Formats: sequence, structure tokens, C-alpha cells
Amino acid sequence: MEKGDSLQQLRAQIDALDGQLIDLLSRRLNLVRQAAAVKKEQKSAAYSKEREAFLLRSRAQQAQAAGLPEGLIEDILRRLLRESYQGGGKSAYPCVLKSERPLVLIGGKGGMGQLFASYFKASGYQLEIIDRDDWDRAPQVLGRALAVFISVPIDLTAAVIARAAPLLPADCVLCDFTSVKAPALAAMLQAHPGPVLGLHPMFGPDIRSMVKQVIVSVGGRDEEKSGFILQQFELWGAKVCTCSAVEHDKAMGIIQALRHFTTYCYGMFLSEIHPDLRQILDLSSPIYRLELLMVGRLFAQDPRLYADIIMSSQGNLELISRYMDSLKPQLDLVLRQDKDAFVRCFNEARAYFGEYAGKFLTESGALLARVQDQRSS
Amino acid sequence: MEKGDSLQQLRAQIDALDGQLIDLLSRRLNLVRQAAAVKKEQKSAAYSKEREAFLLRSRAQQAQAAGLPEGLIEDILRRLLRESYQGGGKSAYPCVLKSERPLVLIGGKGGMGQLFASYFKASGYQLEIIDRDDWDRAPQVLGRALAVFISVPIDLTAAVIARAAPLLPADCVLCDFTSVKAPALAAMLQAHPGPVLGLHPMFGPDIRSMVKQVIVSVGGRDEEKSGFILQQFELWGAKVCTCSAVEHDKAMGIIQALRHFTTYCYGMFLSEIHPDLRQILDLSSPIYRLELLMVGRLFAQDPRLYADIIMSSQGNLELISRYMDSLKPQLDLVLRQDKDAFVRCFNEARAYFGEYAGKFLTESGALLARVQDQRSS
Repeated sequence: MEKGDSLQQLRAQIDALDGQLIDLLSRRLNLVRQAAAVKKEQKSAAYSKEREAFLLRSRAQQAQAAGLPEGLIEDILRRLLRESYQGGGKSAYPCVLKSERPLVLIGGKGGMGQLFASYFKASGYQLEIIDRDDWDRAPQVLGRALAVFISVPIDLTAAVIARAAPLLPADCVLCDFTSVKAPALAAMLQAHPGPVLGLHPMFGPDIRSMVKQVIVSVGGRDEEKSGFILQQFELWGAKVCTCSAVEHDKAMGIIQALRHFTTYCYGMFLSEIHPDLRQILDLSSPIYRLELLMVGRLFAQDPRLYADIIMSSQGNLELISRYMDSLKPQLDLVLRQDKDAFVRCFNEARAYFGEYAGKFLTESGALLARVQDQRSS
Repeated sequence: MEKGDSLQQLRAQIDALDGQLIDLLSRRLNLVRQAAAVKKEQKSAAYSKEREAFLLRSRAQQAQAAGLPEGLIEDILRRLLRESYQGGGKSAYPCVLKSERPLVLIGGKGGMGQLFASYFKASGYQLEIIDRDDWDRAPQVLGRALAVFISVPIDLTAAVIARAAPLLPADCVLCDFTSVKAPALAAMLQAHPGPVLGLHPMFGPDIRSMVKQVIVSVGGRDEEKSGFILQQFELWGAKVCTCSAVEHDKAMGIIQALRHFTTYCYGMFLSEIHPDLRQILDLSSPIYRLELLMVGRLFAQDPRLYADIIMSSQGNLELISRYMDSLKPQLDLVLRQDKDAFVRCFNEARAYFGEYAGKFLTESGALLARVQDQRSS
């Protein structure tokens, strides 16, 4: 480099270099696609935690040696890995259990049903879908089923279980995708004498890849018979988390019902005081922009779905009531401007979060930087 | 590529390619550093909205032509741009107003004071810092000040203004960084007959770059005299947003006070019902993980700061009370499981969010994908 290089010359060099970057990324994705094809032949999983960890570690060392700023190569690699998990695509999964008997998705025309249908098909399973308008096929299809997945709105689940179970072979695995597990599991165990498995996919039908997505598994009966299903999920890259129905339902009260309720209430309040959203966005810190994003996204979705989730169990209603009761003393404290009491309470909650508070600060910092990256000015 | 390539061979090729990627990134950052140096000589801003938009647009076209998946090059470039804004560094800013007279930061040993001090120094200003333990220097230092920035805890602001103002030359610009602008501005206007400017940086002292950070500006008096300060902020890449003190304080009630209060209350409630955080994290959807990150990060920070922000004005307390009142009918609706009423309310809020709901869904989708990228398994 000459000292006298003008800005224009430097920018031309950056432009040329970005051309090389695009070429290189394109070649890399091509290699990854070939690797995915080989992995399918070898019947190994789309996602390998060990390979990911190795890649990130070794590249970070190389990047440090090359003098790159900390964290840069990791961020870029994680973004590339996402692409390769998605690009692995639905056309290339090994099949854990080859069988002539079909997997049956009841309610398979809904978003979640379609998603699982496409993954099962891509893994070489015989697949049948039964929706409300073709129930006349049910006796014939269900009579040969290897496993049945009930993927219908929560208030229909019990009725559909009662209707389907008598048609199943005794060794068929009966599963459901309902977001409240205790009643669904009880209904399945009562209606079907064979293997039973409760499932709850912790994502919506719009995901672009199953890699790293959580599927909760709640054991029902004859778990050795349903093991192939969980193995298949893991081959897709999903993370299977096992717990009891009671633990699941308690956690979902927090993770789903209370969370959606508070977001909904906050959005309702904003619409009541109707601040100018354009101005609020202009004045926002990255933290508040993120908050607004998460609130606004709720209202772009289906209200029935949220009503169902929030009001799906007595436990949820009790949790929400208890939460509302907990707010009163906090309001009083703030209204009397008691900063010392605020600090005492704050420190209690800090103790509960423990080492997570600091971890969350770091991890959210990376996300907030990303919120800023997206800002156009 | 041969058909028979094994996974091992393909991985070796990917490894080699990543070596080239690191080399290329290193050369790119080097070019960017040189461009930053040229820009400093030319006295142009660290960040150019137009250049950023041009880069993103033209690379996206090239990437599409090369068959790269949509969004990939944009994400990588935004990440690189962040690095180059940070790497532009604090050692290279042009100075809008050369003067022998100093800028003075009162409370300059606090985090925010230190941040602005380093930026002002890096831009070639004479800089003086006065903290509580060296107030005896105040008459001499303040007597020559070009501009004074008051950066002290909010409950000390009025007293510090009253103490400092009589020592200032009549043409000195008096500024503050307080998060409630109406009273601070009134106090400055009353105490100082010269130029007055209210400022509120919408970020914490831990940011790594001023690029795209918002600084709110509230005009006080003789704005042509304080214009150089806002121009300087813009040269650092910050976005200056101008509004009235009343608009600012109303917006901050929402953006800061209510937001922090609800986050605090939610954290308090979690600590009261103390679920196992490890299990909750395992079972979480990306949305709830993000929620936990944002709640947990609050409790890693200074409680006094949050108490000050939440309780800093009567307007905030009224807003919080009004919010609490708004929750009651929502709770009633949920307890009587009135899904139709829920859907009606939901649709009202959706109408308020208007086109933002869809935009927020898309933008948050990109962030949630990033939350998944970070997940280690």
C-alpha cells in the first residue's frame, strides 16, 4: 500500500476483495452440500455438536493468530453453519426404522403437521395424513399404523384421541403434539393399551431447520418401542429434552402462558396510550427496540393460538393470578419512591439468577449489538 | 470434485477454505483501517449511511448472481461493518471546532463521563474533568470553558447546575446528560444566561462504538452556539434525535421507566417461584430464552441506577400506575377463559401496531435465528 492511496482506491480494493469473499462463500456452501450428501449415505446426523465445537475452536485459534478481532470469526461461522444446517435440506436424512407400515399424522394439514410430514417423508418413511375432511379413511390407514401423531388444536385433542385409539394396532406408538402434557398423556394411556409418547415441539411451523430446535419428550408407556422416533428427531438435529408431564406443564406455564400473557397485556397498554411508534423507535435504545420487536411480533400472529396457550390449563390461570398478586407490593414500593426497598428486592432476585445474570448480560450484549447492526441509521 | 470424496476429504477442503477466509477477512480489515485514516484526514464522518446502503445493495446483487442463499452476505457484511466502525477506533476523529478553551465534563470519572471524555480527546479537544473530590479546581477550569457537560446521578443534577453555572463565561454552552429533561433544562436555563442544550445518550458506558447509537437532543437556548456539539456526535457516527423536553420525558416513561419496572417485577416473580433455571433454559423456545436473557441482564447491573430511572419523575409513577390499572380487566378476561374477548382485544392492539406488527415479526425472526445460532446444542 502506498501512502497516497485515496479513499476511492481503497474502496475499489475492498470491492474486489468482497467479490473474492462471495466466491469463497459459494465454494464453501458447495462443499458443505456434498458433505451433507455423504452424511446421508453414512446415516449420520445432519448436525454434529462435536464438529461444530471443533470448527469454532480451531478457527478462533487461527483467527487470533491472524490478528482478527475477538468474536468475529465465531459470529461469521455460526451464521454459515446455520446456512449449512438449512441447506442440508429436507431431501437428505437417514431413516432410523425402515417399515412398510405408515406413520400417520392426524391434523397433518396444519402448519406443524406439514412440517413434520415433510421431515418424515424426507427420511424415507411411508406417510399418511388424516385431516377432518377425510376421516372415512381412518379405519384403513390407522389399522396399519406404525406410529400416530395427533397434531390438532388443544381443545380437540381428547376427542380425537378417543376416536382414533380404538382403530390402532396394539403395538402402534400413539403420540401427541399438545402443549399441555398431563391431560393428553392421561387420555392416550387410557384409550390405547400400547406404546404412548407425549411430545411438545418448542417451535412454530415457520422454522427453516430443525437443527438445535427443542422437542420435549414425556414418556408414557413402552418407551423402548417409541425410541426410534426420538432418534429420528436427533438425526434431524433437534434437541430432545425429556421430563415428566408435571414438570413440563409447570415449566410451560412460565415459558408460554405467563410470557404470552404479559406480552399481550403490554401490547394492549401501548395501544391504549397509543404513543407514536415512529418516534418511540427513533428514540429507543437497542434494548427497547428489541422489546418492541417481541411485543409487535405477537400481534402479527393468530390470536386464537395465544388464547389457547394462555387459557389451556387451570395451572396457567393460577400462575397468572399469582403473578398479578406479586405486582401490587412492587407498585406500592415504587409509588412511595422507596429506593432502599427496591434495592433490597433487586438483590434478592439477583441472588436467584446467580451466575446466570452475568452470563445473560454477556449473551444479550451480543444480541443487542446485532440489533444495532440492523439499524439503518 | 470426485464422486468418491469421503467426508474426511471434504472437511479437509472446508478447513483449507476457512484458512483463506480468515486471510481475506484480515486483509479486508486492514484496508478498512487505512480508509478510516484517510477519512480522518478528510475530516469526514466515521460512518456513512450512504456507503453502508450502497455496500449492502451491491453485494446482495453479486451474491444473488453467485447463487448464495438470501440474506447471508448481508448478515456477514453487517457484522464486518460493525467491526470496522469499532476498529475506526477512538484515535481517529476530525474536530468540528478547534479551540484553546476546554470542554469540561463534570462527573467525568463516571462511566458515561469517561466514554465521552475519550471520544472528545480522540477528536482533538482540550478536555478537563471535574469530579466531586476536585471541586476546588472548578472556578479556574469552568471560567475558561467552551462547553460544560454535567454527567452526575440524577438527584444531584440540580445542585451541580446551581453550583457550576455562576462560574461559567456567558458564551459557554451548558449541557447535561440526565435522563429526565424538563427539570434539568429548566434548571440550566434559569441558572445560566448563555447557550443551553439538553442531551440524553440512549446507551450505557459499555458500548464499543458510537456508530448508530442514539443521542437525544433537546434545544434550550442559542442553538447555533451548541450546533458544533451535535455535529461532533454525528462525526462519531451517532444518530442525533431532536425533540422537546416534554416529548422526551413522555417517551422515556415508556422506553425506560415502565420497561425497567416490568422487567424488574418479572424477575422478582421468578425469584419468588424459583423455577430451576437450568431446566427452564433447556425447555425454552428461542423467544423465551431471549426473554430470560433480557430479564437476567437487568439483575447483573446497578440497582440504584434502575431505581433512579424508574422513580425519576411523577410522570413515570403515573404511567406505571396506569399500566397496573390496565392489567386488571385482562386478568379477569383470562380467568373467565373468555377467548372471544381476548381475540377482540388482541385485534385492537394489532390495529395499533399496524404495519409494524409484520415488520417486527420479520426483524425479530432474524434475531431469534441468531439466538439459535448461539445455542451450543
